[in-house]
Amino acid sequence: MLYGVGIGPGDPELMTLKAARILAAARVIAFFAKRGHQGHARRIATAHVRDGAEEIRLEYPVTTELPVEDPRYLAQMADFYADSAALIARRLDQGLDVAVLCEGDPFFYGSFMYLYDRLRPAYQSEIVPGITGMGGCWTRAGLPMTHGDDVLTILPGTLAEADLVTGLERADAAVIMKIGRNLPKVRAALAQAGLSERAIYVERGTMADERILPLKDMKDRPAPYFSIILVPGRQGRR
Amino acid sequence: MLYGVGIGPGDPELMTLKAARILAAARVIAFFAKRGHQGHARRIATAHVRDGAEEIRLEYPVTTELPVEDPRYLAQMADFYADSAALIARRLDQGLDVAVLCEGDPFFYGSFMYLYDRLRPAYQSEIVPGITGMGGCWTRAGLPMTHGDDVLTILPGTLAEADLVTGLERADAAVIMKIGRNLPKVRAALAQAGLSERAIYVERGTMADERILPLKDMKDRPAPYFSIILVPGRQGRR
Repeated sequence: MLYGVGIGPGDPELMTLKAARILAAARVIAFFAKRGHQGHARRIATAHVRDGAEEIRLEYPVTTELPVEDPRYLAQMADFYADSAALIARRLDQGLDVAVLCEGDPFFYGSFMYLYDRLRPAYQSEIVPGITGMGGCWTRAGLPMTHGDDVLTILPGTLAEADLVTGLERADAAVIMKIGRNLPKVRAALAQAGLSERAIYVERGTMADERILPLKDMKDRPAPYFSIILVPGRQGRR
Repeated sequence: MLYGVGIGPGDPELMTLKAARILAAARVIAFFAKRGHQGHARRIATAHVRDGAEEIRLEYPVTTELPVEDPRYLAQMADFYADSAALIARRLDQGLDVAVLCEGDPFFYGSFMYLYDRLRPAYQSEIVPGITGMGGCWTRAGLPMTHGDDVLTILPGTLAEADLVTGLERADAAVIMKIGRNLPKVRAALAQAGLSERAIYVERGTMADERILPLKDMKDRPAPYFSIILVPGRQGRR
């Protein structure tokens, strides 16, 4: 069985009971990590990984060295996901269960989906949902996001500025993910949509070193890739 | 301390470790319920409620008897939330902690926010995020929702048909909440946006009696209020 285990936004206590049970039993775990780093997912799960579990470390060949539009980026990532799926398939073929650790939720902007798309046709799988990064962030920021009939739009900060503006203009509440080096562009789009005053910036939400501040107080220094911007809905407009 | 405790989409094992810890210690719990019913939230939390805990049951004065646009509905609900907040404030004033059970996530389309908006100015609070209903549903439906640059739009089914169409046309992936008696309208909006073929209907996701089927196979009988429609993003369009 292939397990995709959502382990939540960062605070290890925000894992579900089901995720903790599956990790405690898993003899083989797999996780993505940036080259030279332990990996967020592995760190979050530390207290729950079974002693002596085999660890399959899936190290991204590139992260921010190439822009995502670059054909070389796409080609390298496609090879990487194919190789990663093959590594996991080898253990599954031996009759072993493999639990893939997924930051946030496995089906919400996660690398796990690229493995799942490849392995699903041939193997049994079970997914455990996780608290999303955005859920952890709006909780920590004390921001009720959506009341009643509010429309919530979730936009990757990697979109073109014009597409961000269009998406923001239609939304009552918005979440902009993957801020990173997109911060100046995202800030400009929020200003055009008239949302700058309501926007809250959250960096490493639910983790020990989290930072939460109004976007207007945030300087245009490089933001971590996993920072996020929240625009709450009806709250504050009554 | 006022706790808003997200208890997830229905399966009790999809509660977080933190939610379970807080419930096990809570001497006073509160929860919303439909008149004459135990209440979903109370039922989901059963295994974790402390023996002998005081239970504050907050019973909706109306649910589907009046349309949400009706001024009498709004007036009755405003009174209800004010009375509910007062009941909880009485316990907080006595120095007791109160844990409010919240289906899904407390800050995502939940009744808890109406208490929080009223109690927040005067009391300390801590929120525990929960797996959302939509997260439980897309997991059970086996639907990776958002890859890469996908835009996800979340729309309440209570919106006017034209607003649903506009929201859907801009989205790569979509979630439509609160289907209930809005099903024929939502179905028409999906057809206008060209999304009927990709839409999946989920009823009582993660619960024992869940139903998951392509929307096109779903008859126009009344759907439960907490049913949901999912339109996955890039997956299936490659």
